[in-house]
This record gives sequence, C-alpha cells and structure tokens, in this order.
Amino acid sequence: MLWVVKRAHVRSKDRGSKSGGLDRALSHLDTRKTGAGWGPPAAPLYHRAAQKRDTLGCGNKGSPMLIVMKAHATEEQVRGVCQKIESLGLRAHSIPGTQRTAIGITGNETDLDPGIFEEMLGVQEVIAVSKPYKLVSRDVKEEDTVINFSGTDASFGGDELAIIAGPCAIESREQALTTAKHVACAGAKFFRGGAYKPRTSPYSFQGLAEDGLKILAEVRDRFGLLIVTEAIDNESLDLVEKYGDVIQIGARNMQNFSLLKRAGRARKPVLLKRGMSATVEEFLMAAEYIMSEGNYNVILCERGVRTFADHTRNTLDLSVVPAVQRLSHLPIIVDPSHGTGKRNKVTPLSRAAVAVGADGLIIEVHPDPDRALSDGKQSLFPEQFDQLMAEVREIARVLKRSIAGPVADPQARRPVTASAGSAAAR
Amino acid sequence: MLWVVKRAHVRSKDRGSKSGGLDRALSHLDTRKTGAGWGPPAAPLYHRAAQKRDTLGCGNKGSPMLIVMKAHATEEQVRGVCQKIESLGLRAHSIPGTQRTAIGITGNETDLDPGIFEEMLGVQEVIAVSKPYKLVSRDVKEEDTVINFSGTDASFGGDELAIIAGPCAIESREQALTTAKHVACAGAKFFRGGAYKPRTSPYSFQGLAEDGLKILAEVRDRFGLLIVTEAIDNESLDLVEKYGDVIQIGARNMQNFSLLKRAGRARKPVLLKRGMSATVEEFLMAAEYIMSEGNYNVILCERGVRTFADHTRNTLDLSVVPAVQRLSHLPIIVDPSHGTGKRNKVTPLSRAAVAVGADGLIIEVHPDPDRALSDGKQSLFPEQFDQLMAEVREIARVLKRSIAGPVADPQARRPVTASAGSAAAR
Amino acid sequence: MLWVVKRAHVRSKDRGSKSGGLDRALSHLDTRKTGAGWGPPAAPLYHRAAQKRDTLGCGNKGSPMLIVMKAHATEEQVRGVCQKIESLGLRAHSIPGTQRTAIGITGNETDLDPGIFEEMLGVQEVIAVSKPYKLVSRDVKEEDTVINFSGTDASFGGDELAIIAGPCAIESREQALTTAKHVACAGAKFFRGGAYKPRTSPYSFQGLAEDGLKILAEVRDRFGLLIVTEAIDNESLDLVEKYGDVIQIGARNMQNFSLLKRAGRARKPVLLKRGMSATVEEFLMAAEYIMSEGNYNVILCERGVRTFADHTRNTLDLSVVPAVQRLSHLPIIVDPSHGTGKRNKVTPLSRAAVAVGADGLIIEVHPDPDRALSDGKQSLFPEQFDQLMAEVREIARVLKRSIAGPVADPQARRPVTASAGSAAAR
Amino acid sequence: MLWVVKRAHVRSKDRGSKSGGLDRALSHLDTRKTGAGWGPPAAPLYHRAAQKRDTLGCGNKGSPMLIVMKAHATEEQVRGVCQKIESLGLRAHSIPGTQRTAIGITGNETDLDPGIFEEMLGVQEVIAVSKPYKLVSRDVKEEDTVINFSGTDASFGGDELAIIAGPCAIESREQALTTAKHVACAGAKFFRGGAYKPRTSPYSFQGLAEDGLKILAEVRDRFGLLIVTEAIDNESLDLVEKYGDVIQIGARNMQNFSLLKRAGRARKPVLLKRGMSATVEEFLMAAEYIMSEGNYNVILCERGVRTFADHTRNTLDLSVVPAVQRLSHLPIIVDPSHGTGKRNKVTPLSRAAVAVGADGLIIEVHPDPDRALSDGKQSLFPEQFDQLMAEVREIARVLKRSIAGPVADPQARRPVTASAGSAAAR
Repeated sequence: MLWVVKRAHVRSKDRGSKSGGLDRALSHLDTRKTGAGWGPPAAPLYHRAAQKRDTLGCGNKGSPMLIVMKAHATEEQVRGVCQKIESLGLRAHSIPGTQRTAIGITGNETDLDPGIFEEMLGVQEVIAVSKPYKLVSRDVKEEDTVINFSGTDASFGGDELAIIAGPCAIESREQALTTAKHVACAGAKFFRGGAYKPRTSPYSFQGLAEDGLKILAEVRDRFGLLIVTEAIDNESLDLVEKYGDVIQIGARNMQNFSLLKRAGRARKPVLLKRGMSATVEEFLMAAEYIMSEGNYNVILCERGVRTFADHTRNTLDLSVVPAVQRLSHLPIIVDPSHGTGKRNKVTPLSRAAVAVGADGLIIEVHPDPDRALSDGKQSLFPEQFDQLMAEVREIARVLKRSIAGPVADPQARRPVTASAGSAAAR
Repeated sequence: MLWVVKRAHVRSKDRGSKSGGLDRALSHLDTRKTGAGWGPPAAPLYHRAAQKRDTLGCGNKGSPMLIVMKAHATEEQVRGVCQKIESLGLRAHSIPGTQRTAIGITGNETDLDPGIFEEMLGVQEVIAVSKPYKLVSRDVKEEDTVINFSGTDASFGGDELAIIAGPCAIESREQALTTAKHVACAGAKFFRGGAYKPRTSPYSFQGLAEDGLKILAEVRDRFGLLIVTEAIDNESLDLVEKYGDVIQIGARNMQNFSLLKRAGRARKPVLLKRGMSATVEEFLMAAEYIMSEGNYNVILCERGVRTFADHTRNTLDLSVVPAVQRLSHLPIIVDPSHGTGKRNKVTPLSRAAVAVGADGLIIEVHPDPDRALSDGKQSLFPEQFDQLMAEVREIARVLKRSIAGPVADPQARRPVTASAGSAAAR
Repeated sequence: MLWVVKRAHVRSKDRGSKSGGLDRALSHLDTRKTGAGWGPPAAPLYHRAAQKRDTLGCGNKGSPMLIVMKAHATEEQVRGVCQKIESLGLRAHSIPGTQRTAIGITGNETDLDPGIFEEMLGVQEVIAVSKPYKLVSRDVKEEDTVINFSGTDASFGGDELAIIAGPCAIESREQALTTAKHVACAGAKFFRGGAYKPRTSPYSFQGLAEDGLKILAEVRDRFGLLIVTEAIDNESLDLVEKYGDVIQIGARNMQNFSLLKRAGRARKPVLLKRGMSATVEEFLMAAEYIMSEGNYNVILCERGVRTFADHTRNTLDLSVVPAVQRLSHLPIIVDPSHGTGKRNKVTPLSRAAVAVGADGLIIEVHPDPDRALSDGKQSLFPEQFDQLMAEVREIARVLKRSIAGPVADPQARRPVTASAGSAAAR
Repeated sequence: MLWVVKRAHVRSKDRGSKSGGLDRALSHLDTRKTGAGWGPPAAPLYHRAAQKRDTLGCGNKGSPMLIVMKAHATEEQVRGVCQKIESLGLRAHSIPGTQRTAIGITGNETDLDPGIFEEMLGVQEVIAVSKPYKLVSRDVKEEDTVINFSGTDASFGGDELAIIAGPCAIESREQALTTAKHVACAGAKFFRGGAYKPRTSPYSFQGLAEDGLKILAEVRDRFGLLIVTEAIDNESLDLVEKYGDVIQIGARNMQNFSLLKRAGRARKPVLLKRGMSATVEEFLMAAEYIMSEGNYNVILCERGVRTFADHTRNTLDLSVVPAVQRLSHLPIIVDPSHGTGKRNKVTPLSRAAVAVGADGLIIEVHPDPDRALSDGKQSLFPEQFDQLMAEVREIARVLKRSIAGPVADPQARRPVTASAGSAAAR
C-alpha cells in the first residue's frame, strides 16, 4: 500500500548521532540580508514500510499545519516540537527565518488537534494552512529563498541575477568547450547543455548520456562554470546528481511525480520548468512535491505555455513571475529561448524578463546554430549573447540588481572543485 | 470610379487649391529621422457602386501588386502610374519612403499583367505581394511609421514613448479632471477614458456617451492632453472622431469589419486593440482593413490573449511586439492593465513592455479604484502611476528611447486647440 | 448620457390599443408538450431620451428581479404587475410558462424593495436573481423555448431537429438554386448562405449584398426553405430582417453589443454564434443583450473555439451543448463545418452533435466545393450531405427526436409566403 | 547487435521452443476481416550498447525507410530482407498486411541507399517515409489494428466497442468488487481503477499500490473483467505488467519518454492517454516511442485538452478521433469522465464519442461518488452507468458496431485465467 511522503521518526538514528532533520536544518543556516536560506536537502527519507494503513479506512489527508515558534525560542524548544511531531508518526519541516522559526507538519491523514502543540514551550501559534501548497508558500517562509553554491559567488534568488547559458544539447567536447569559454567570458556563471534530451520523436538525437556529463564536468573544471543539466528518469538523475550542480526537470516532466520525488531526495538544487499548460497552482504543487521530500532548493523556470498563438513556438507568460513571487519565496527564472523558439525574439524577451523581475535567465547559445542537433533556430550566435548580456545588465541595474560583468580569463576564476564545489546551497 | 490616396516623397506646402485626394495627401507631409509619416486619412473613398460585377462571374481577388518607383522618379511619373491604375478601375495607394515611392494596387480581381506597368517612366520594379496583408507590411514601407499630432510634441512610433493614462470609464467630470491633472503632471501626453463601454452584461454601466466625450474635450482644453477613447459603432465613431484625438477600436471589435472600414474613412488616427484570440496575421489584417480605406494612421495595441492560465485575467503576449515590428512599420503599444487585470501586475509588466521594445503604454489610473464603475481591480492608484512612470522612464533610457518627465503645471502647456490640435498626423 | 436598455412605460400607447408588451406576449402563446414559447419579438422600443440621469450619480445596476405569479393568476393580475413596474420607469418582461407566468424586471439601477410587489394580487414570490444573466436563464423560464415559423412545420427547439444547409456564401443565382434544391430534397428546412461575409482580409470576396438576399428570397419562394443569413452591421441587418427568416450574428460579432441590441429590436429570430474564445457565461450574456431589447427568439450555435490544436481549424466544443441546456431554455445547434474546417470531419462531428443532444445542425454544402469563393475545404459535396442526413436521422431517433425525411419535390411544399411566412415564432 | 520483431502474413502455429523474437513473433498471428493484428510485444530489445557512436560525429537520423514486399513474397524472402537490414546494424520492423508485408527500418543515422534492397528477391518497392512517425502510420499498415485478449472475446479496434468502467482509484476491496460486479453485469468487459494515482498534490491520496493491484487481480478472477490500470514509473510498470491486462500511461506522462520506452518493452498492451496540450503529431509520436521498442499493441485515448473554457474541467476534443483514424491504424477510445470532469456531462459526451466513431469508452463509476477519494464529481452512480450503456449501445448500432449486452451473472463467464488470459493481442 502506498501512501504519501512520510518520514518516520526512526529515520534519524539510522543516519547516526544527533542529526535529525531538524538538527541538520539548523546547522547549515546561511543568512544574507534578504533572508535566510533553508537547510540542505536531506538524505533519502522515503520508507514505504512506514506507510502501511488499513485499506478500508483510507481517506483524504488532513489540512497541513504550521507551528510558528516565538522569536526567542531556543534550539532545544524547536527540537522538542519536532520530536513531538515525529513521535506522532508525522514529518516535521523546520523552517528558520530571520525573526523566528516555523515548523511545517506533513503526513497527517486527519486534521490534527492544535492543542497538542499550543502549550509546548516556545510555541507562539499553530496555524492550519488553507492553500494546497505549504512549503513553497510565503505564508510559511516570508523571506526570499537564496540558493548559494559553496566555493563560488554564484546564487539564485540573490541580488545578482543567475545567468545560465550554453547549447541545447551537448554534441561534442569541442562544441561544449568553445561555447563554455565564450559564455563564461561574457559573464555567465552557469552552463547549460543536455546530456539527456527528451525529444518528441524516438528517431531524433537523444543526447550523449554519461559521455555528455563527463564533458560537462570538464567544462566546470576548466571555466569554473556551475553545471545545469536535465535528468529524465531515475537513472539519469543519479548521474546528473553526480556530475552536475543543478538538476533540471523539464517541462514535459513537471508532473512526473515519481521523478519529482526522486529529485526531492537529491542533494543538489533542482531547476523545475513549468509544464506547457500548467497553472500557477500546479507549478507550485510540483515544487511542493520536491520540497515535501526534503529538498528545499528549488528554482522555478517559466519557459512559455501553449496557446493558439503561432508567431512564437510557445507564449512566454511573463506575468507568472510576479504571480509566483507573491505566493512563493522560491526564486524564478525565465527561458526566452524555449519560450519563443525564435532567435530574433530571445534578446527582447530577455530584456523583458529581467524588467519584470525575474531572478535569472537561461539562454541557448551555440557556436554554429544552423548545424545544431536540436533547437538551432532558437540558439543565439555567441556574439548575440554578448550583446544580450550588455543589454540585460543595464536593465538589471534599473531594478537595483546586478549581472556579473565580462571576464577576461574565466580559467583564472577560483575553480569549483569536484569534491565540495558542486554541493548545493549552504 | 475609384480614386486615390497618394503622396510623393517630396514634402509639400499647403492645403488649399483644387485638391483632390491626391493633392490633399501631398500637402501634409511630415518626416523625421526614422522615416516619413503617411498622408492623412483621406475622405470616404469607398464606393460600392464601383464594385459591381457580374454575379455569376465572381471570383477570388488576384494577388495584390506593388510597383516600386525609381529613386529619382518625379511626382509626375508617380501620378502617371496612379492614373494608369485608376484607369483600369483599380485603386492605387502611393507609399512614399525616404529613398523611393512605392505604389500598392488593390481591387484587382484577377492577377494583373506586370507588363502593363513595367515599361512606364520612373518604374523600377513590379512585385506580386505574397503576404495576405500589404499596406501594413514592411515590404511596402520599410521605415517605421511615426504618427504626430499638430501643435504638440506627442507622437506614436517616435523616439519618445507614448504614454496614455486615465480611468477605464469616464464616470463624472470631477473624476476625469482629477485623474487627468494627475497623469498630466506625471508626464502622460495622452488621456484615456471610455464614454462608450462595451460591457459583457447589458445590465452594467455602459458609459456616459456624448456627455462623456464633452468631459474629455474639457480635459484636452485644460491639460493639453490628447484624447484616446473608444468607438463601438458607426454612431459613436462619428462623435469620437469629432471630440477625440485617437479613435480606439476595442478587442471585441477587432474583427467588426464594418466598423474597421468606417474607421478607415475617419480623419483621426486609430488605436486598434488585438482581439482576445487573434493571431498576428489576423491582427495585421484588421489594420489592413483600416488602411485599405485610406487611413494610414494606425496604432496597434497588445492587451492580452485568452489562455488556460488563471493567475491573470488575460495572458499578456509581449512576444507579439517584436513579431509585429518585424512584419509591419506600424507602431505598437501595450496595455498591461487589461493584459493582467490585476493592479499588482501592472507595473512589472509595464517595465517588461518597455524593455521588449513597445512604442508606448496605455494604463488605467483611477482616483478611487475601489469605487470605479468598471475594472477597478486593475486600475492604479495615482501615486502608483507616478512610481510606474519613474521606473519605465529609466528602462526606456536603456533602449535609447525616452519618456517625458513630470510637469509642474500641465495647464501651462501649449493648449491643444479644438480646431487644429486634435487633427491627426501631420 | 447613455444608459442601458430601458423601455418607458408610455411606450405601449404609442403602438396603439391594448398591446403592451404583456398583452403581446400573452396573445401569442404556443404550447407544446415540452413547454410554452415566448411572445414574438417586440417592435423597436429603445428610447435614448428616456435614459437621462445625473452624470455624477451614475452607479452600477441593481440586482435583476423576478416576480413569480400564482398558478391561477389572471391576465389582469399579470397586467397589473407589469403596469406597476412600468410606472416605476422600469421594464417588464412577461414570461408565460405552462404552470404560471413569471415577470422579469430590468432597468433598475438600484436594488428594488421586494415589498413593492409582494402584496399585489396574484403574486406568489419575488426573487432577486443572482446570475448575471436573467432572461436567458432556466431560473426564469423552466421550459425549453421552441421557435416556430408560421405557415411551416419548421422549428428550433422542438422534437424535430432543425437542419440548416447551403453554401458558405451566395455566389450566384445558379449556385444557390442548385444547392437549395438538393438540400431541400434531402430534408433540410432551412437554407444558409452569406450575402455579407466577414472576411479576415479586405481583399477577399465579401458577398453579393442585397443582390444575394434577393437570390435567397427566390430560394424561399421556390423551395419553401426558410432563410438563415448573416448581418454584419445595422445596415445589413435591416435588409436581412426584410429578406430573411433568421438573422445570423457571426462569431466575430458575438460581442458587438451595438449589433446585438439592434438584433434585439428586430422582429425575426436571431441565430447567435459563439465567439472564438467565449466562455459559456459570455455566450449567454450576449444572448441576454438581444433578449433585453425584447426579442426572445434566440438560437445559440456552437461553432468551435480557438485552441492550440492544429488538426482542425477550430476545436468543436460539444460539451457546451449540455452545459447551455442546463443553464438556459434557449435552443442550441452546432456548426461542424466551421467547427472543424475540414470536409472529412463534418459528418462524424454531425453525428456526435446530434448524439450529444443539439437541437439542430448548420452545414455547408456546395455544388462544386473546390471552386467555392470561401471555405470550400469545409463544404460537403451534395451527395455527402445526403449521406450525413441519413446518418444523423438514425442517431436522432435514438434520442427520441426526429429529422425530416427526404422529399421528392420540395417545390410542392406549402410555400412560405413573403408576407406572413417568414415572420418569427408563434 | 539489434535484432528484430517480425511476423509474416501467414498465420502460424505454436509458441514453443526457444524461439528468438522473430520466431516468437511469427507464431501468434491472428487475422480478422478488418485486418490483421500485429505480433505480440517482443522481449526487451533496446541495447544502448548498439547505439554507441563517435561523439563528434553525431548527427540527426536519416529518413525512416519502408520496404514493401511483393504480394506473393515468401516468408524466406521477408526474412532475407530483415537479415540484410540487421547486418547493417539497423532494426527491421516487419508489418504484415492482408495483401502484402512491409518492413520498416529504423536506426539509420543517415539516409540509406534504396538500391541496397531494391534488387532483393520479393521486394516490390522501397519508400522513404516523410512523416515524422512511421510505425503508427497508415502508410505503413493500412488495416485497422485489432488488439485481442486470448481466452476472451474482448478486443480494442474490432467491431465491438471496448467498454472500460470502474472507479478512479481502488480504495478498498469492497469498493472494487461492488463496482466490478455492477459494471460487468451492465456489459463492460474491462475494469479500470488506479492503484497508483498521479495527484497534483503530494498530500493527496496516492493509491494503494501493490495491494490495489492484488484487488484488481481478484476482480479479474471473480468477474472475468480485463484489468486496465495506470503505471507511473518503471517500478509500478513492472507490477502493472504482472497483475494487469492493459498498462495505462496517463496524460501527464504522455511525454515521459523514459516510461514510454519501458512500456514499449512490456508484453501487455498499452493504453496511452493524450497529454493535456498535445497536438495530434505529438500524440502519435508518443505512440511511436512505444512501438519503436517493439510493442505494437497501443490503444490511444482522448481525455480532454486544456483550453480557456471553464464550464468543463477539460475540453473534450472529439474531432481527434477521425483525425487519428485517418493517420493511424491504432484504435482510439474516449474518456468523457476526465474529459468533462462533471457527472452530468458524461452520458451525453459518451453518446457523442460513440457517434463520432471511437473504438471504446473509459468511464468512471463509483458506488458512492460523493465519498470517492478522488474525482468523485465526475464518477457516475452505478444506475447512471446502466443508462449510459443502454444509450451508447443503440448509437453503436447506427454505426454498424456493437456493445456487449447486460449479463445476468458475470461470474459465470469463462474465467480469464491468470496464466494465459491476460496475455495480449493475438
């Protein structure tokens, strides 16, 4: 019998010492002026065994619940509440903020009695959450989430916009290195390139798989670029988690819930693209799937929705950026390459995306677009990318944000080391 | 007999004399560095009588045709070609450019033999136009169309962006004057406000009609603002043409071809809003309807399209701005108020619209949005509009364009006089 | 100042004798087992003069209100309530049903006090209507509306389905008569054919105008077919009302409210096509516009909506048929020709439309589709139409409804006379 | 080395021996008047190893190619061509028809020289296929595919329509058995019920997993119903393949290419639902993914697409049925429960689906819809299902097709044995 996300309270001791989810969360805080980060993604926590219940008695879940701690609650008090939650067979998500800590509860199959917690030490308030999503919500975490990468100054959700650039697919070592050098010089700090390509036709080029990932790892080593690359199933996700820095979930897999859960157990941040006909609620719920498994480092990405309009491949819905930012603390970036499907629209829509307030861009660049194995029509020529960077940098400044400037020699950048560098968000 | 709107690339002098449509057209030229404007809208030109043809022999129209004149063709040569076209019972549209004049032919029911024109004096080339639209196309007029307003420095399509602001509907003299004063001070040069409101329900407020137009005329007199207001049928168009400066055709009427033709015979510029599910081709064809009747002063407006997305009232399709700009020389502005339907999305999407390259904005502002008779939820508070203006002004600068600055006393502006001021495009 | 629909209480005496709207309505009842029809469309009732009010005091309308009479209320009591309503400067819509009469009130600008009516003789109940539409609603009239045509056995909304067939556009007398003879023989009782064609391009064939209407009148005279043809503006509506039997309002004009109001003052039934991206509420509100002017003979028509799907020209939304039938008493038919845009899809979707419960079909048939001046690709060959009729006739039988059988000699049918025959709904 | 699934047009004898895919394929033929079925799904055939190629030399695939054999080509000649193809490192798909066998080639990375095959014995013609899909196409297999289930008279694509009914999710043994008995009595031959539910929220009921599958197996044993149930990832697919008879791939996974490939290696037929915004081409390409792995038993299912319309949960696109039937030989059924999301629309749309020509229906039925754990609003009450069956049975008859009648005692039906019964398509 399969039930939803549940983290047994025995889990922590399997992983040794004092390190429950709470401790782990509390021990990796990273604050910056715009708000505190989350804890790092937890280790795999999913125990089917713990989820047995009577077949005939199954019912809908109770309302999610949120416990807001007092401003001066001690770590011990926070830990006490988490232990209480776990002792009920439920899952606690400790969510530290600049002012106070909140603790989300998931896994309850019926409504909980708030009285259980109200009288505990350090508890200020117990709130039943009415929105269908919880961990993604600003109700639960007011400050913007900023995802940092250790050993680098790159981030998502901070003052500096994240620029991800590179070819649609990794086609060869030469193609990757040429493009990487160019985009690193232009100021990008993240490199994109598919090793696994979900293609509409089974007869189209499907990517170089692990060979492609090895090329990407070389790109990181040589140019200090952080690697963003797509996983299409559990097997590829294992490898992407090993070689890459950010795990991309594509639009077609936005509601591949099995893959979302696997991503939720990964220890790297996840870039989640909006499905082609996803509402904002469905988009946020997909992120909730990832977060409910313990990985709080989720970056959202608008990449165009499907409409009747035929002058672009998809219709880029920039209004989703402020809409998401009202509802969620997660960073959101824009993909004008897939969003328009046409090279000549990429730069104007990049400017618009930055102007609307996006936290970054993901742009396709190819040294020879007309010979690209996929999506050549929407890839920029390298020099067009330089121009784009110059333009969006100025727009960002109007919004009091920044985009990194060009670099003479990216090889000289402090290398992102394989061992530590690619670990996520602390 | 059909006769002709035409104009040479030579600027000319006065209005007087015997002036047929041709001479009249020739007499109002205005050029600026980015390209020459068109002639003013001609008097009503549409003669059904001229369209009589054998009932049984009716057939589809022939391909539109375009005659490109030599760079140094004389006015007389241009006139000669036009007369030849007219002598065939067809219609000639003379389209002067900075380099050379082109002459469009419409009304041919079968393909014409190019040989008829190829050997005429001054003719360089005869081209069959393959696109379904013609007069709106950059193939026919390469330079951007700039629409100026005599006695003012306001324009559409020039370096300075056109900012139109005001309430959804004119509700009272006081509401209009209060809003107008505010937006004029903030730098807007155009005032919007519906006197005729197309409402989904017959039981909703439908506007103050001519009383509303009179209030709008007072707004122009007092604050020097040019008036943009909607016409919903032939009767209201007559009055809007009389009282206003720009005739708005709403999204619901984008394919009300009868109204488009009437607007094509008006002597004021037309602001044409994109229909809720119009493709770019349909949008441009609607403009072609207006132009084919002789009114070349058309401003396009993106106002959101209808999709599955439910976080905004419509989905603002900013990619249509560069798409239209590639295909057409007409100016295109953006309406983020209707495009999103939510006050808190108006400013971010206004920034994005300017960043994508739009030629202007049309924004709803109301002194007391919560009591507005229509669309209050999407109307900005006056002080929000000031903030918006400050932000888009900076974005415009990045694109090497400008937005007029705040004005201490708009009453001191050179008044736009009723007699001349509101006439279009010279 | 323009306010909405208002019918002054003095109106009836202008039109002589006892004939208030109520009397007129009461005097033309037609009952059939599934329910009573409405009264005939009233004469033009729209008096701008009666609509003056203080500019500054304008506000949204009050809730529509409905007075339900007792089962045995007398005609006099009904008339008394109507007179009371009119004495308040409002408009009464008497809606007789099989059990009892209801009286709708429109024109109230503020909420009315139900107490005004509750104590009047014959009144059972006073209900504030919460839906935005009222006259179209089943809340107000429970029984299906059946629209009959005097001197014929044709109807919309009765047991027999209405079949409308003919070419997209009237191209010539010969084309019309050939097609008409064929479809009449196959069992159609209505003939379609555009004399005014709203075309995307100004350069496409736009119809034969009045010459086309004269051909249509000849079709009626020779084959006893009732004429359904489109009006695109007030001028063409005058002529369509004169020559035709049913006035079609096309999808592009579904929210041309000015035209809807004019149609609401016509004395012929109106076929209203759903707009390309209209919700059910907008569709019903468009019908409400027509009814609020006094013409209760409205037939709705689904003709496909615009979506991303590209295998048909539009996506035929058959679920709208039961959706409308739950909310409204008006008949609804389906247009599979425009709904699919492809000849080979017309017959399967016609079967589906009848199976879903539509009250009729409107089908394009052309004697030589490949040479049609418009929409040839979606027109059936005449023999395909025979096959279609045979198939849908059998499907209708499964739903306990019928479709008229083939006729050897349609000329022998009782002619529909010009004087009386084409008048609507009694 | 890649090897081959193939089958001659000669029917054959037994299963025995060690038989490679080729022999196995040859041994299970079954023809019926409307056309021959395909061979059974082959064992897993996909060898990534065989796809190694020089990283730098990768390129797009060559055009797919099709070899049409002569009408009297012998099995040996067919096998000879297949061996030739395999000797080139490519994959051969033998596609027997009633008249002749065709052999599809996939795996070629560059265009092949037709001359290689043209002179071989038995070859009539070599055709380069221009459509992006191939194995799904009628160009390659003209006759309708009929999928039979051994030991039963149930099928997809035959004269009799396939009726699948049951609850959205398996909630308990009692709920499943109650519903199953009812729908079996009403004439359904297939039972639906999710053991794995892809839910928008991670906090919603996600299904009983293997416990649910065991309940489904009991349903088959007791009522002779064939089991259709959804797989959401590779793990659940293994179990669904073990316990069920038809593997359902949900709309959200229509472009989960990794899962499609796994389904293509399964030995049970696959029911593939159309994605919420999938074009016909994408839909067919998803089926092509399954078929390209060797499983030719694919049933397509329309379940509504996402549009602006809000009166139903999705917009059921019935025109896709004839559209698919023109392009593909695969059976296509309709899901009016998800397609409308509203109980009161299910029966009318079921009638319409049968009338349009669908090969079956999948309907949600629940003994107590208001307490269903998922999608209760769209589930029929059992007695509504009886009524639906009566209505669609009559409609099917009009199309010269049939739907099985009610059964007094489904337990008395020839049991579908676990060993043989659930094997697919012979």
